[in-house]
Amino acid sequence: MKKESFYCDFILPGKTKKDNRTRIYRYQGNFMWHGIKTEKYKPGCGDWADIVRRTLIGNHGESTKFHIRYFEIAPKGYSSFEMHKHEHVVIVIRGEGICIVGNKKYKIGFLDTLYITPNEPHQLRNPHDEPFGFLCIVNARRDRPKILNP
Amino acid sequence: MKKESFYCDFILPGKTKKDNRTRIYRYQGNFMWHGIKTEKYKPGCGDWADIVRRTLIGNHGESTKFHIRYFEIAPKGYSSFEMHKHEHVVIVIRGEGICIVGNKKYKIGFLDTLYITPNEPHQLRNPHDEPFGFLCIVNARRDRPKILNP
Repeated sequence: MKKESFYCDFILPGKTKKDNRTRIYRYQGNFMWHGIKTEKYKPGCGDWADIVRRTLIGNHGESTKFHIRYFEIAPKGYSSFEMHKHEHVVIVIRGEGICIVGNKKYKIGFLDTLYITPNEPHQLRNPHDEPFGFLCIVNARRDRPKILNP
Repeated sequence: MKKESFYCDFILPGKTKKDNRTRIYRYQGNFMWHGIKTEKYKPGCGDWADIVRRTLIGNHGESTKFHIRYFEIAPKGYSSFEMHKHEHVVIVIRGEGICIVGNKKYKIGFLDTLYITPNEPHQLRNPHDEPFGFLCIVNARRDRPKILNP
């Protein structure tokens, strides 16, 4: 048995990447995965800074009722302070950061798991010198966030 | 700002645990979380061995369209060889293991991410001497697995 290094093994010839098919996205280190591109989060929009997004599940024609994204906030970066009807689940996998939910503030680190209910204002911040990265799982069908004043 | 050590901070007095509310499940080491109990996977049913489940999202009244479970397969253990209509997403967070999908077999390790389409037969196995643990994300509404002969 060979350790395959690329998700493309699962793609049959003649099919497009948008097909709903079984795939493996190999972790390549540094919180990147083969076959998953790095996107600039909310380019040119709203109050946020220094975040990238890697969409693990949701961009390749998957039929799941959820999407899984990896977000990474650079040192001193932060997400927009926002609320929306859809829930958020955050699972930290890199570094440490701060989450603001409602009027509370918590330090979160490796594998801490945060469930944020509908319409709960929230923000994630990285006050540290190392990147802060987390999985964020959301419903596939979801509303657009409303940006708030912190 | 204090580092809170328990998810109970988020539970208001007089409410039951089944309320849909914002919560933090603190990682306590050894792939366990405060407030998340360890369940014996499929007790007394089918062809599987040496697996525990910790349901991170799905047992506390959350309104998400998905559930998130941590599964841990002990050395030499394995899940049932099964298929179902719902998709599986597997993200490895502890050790290494083997996934069988259709007629293929792959080694998977830390942060490798596997998407399994509807009706794809699959099994996870741990041939190693260390525990093999992974997040498994599924739709909240899903069908019962059909056990197959390997």
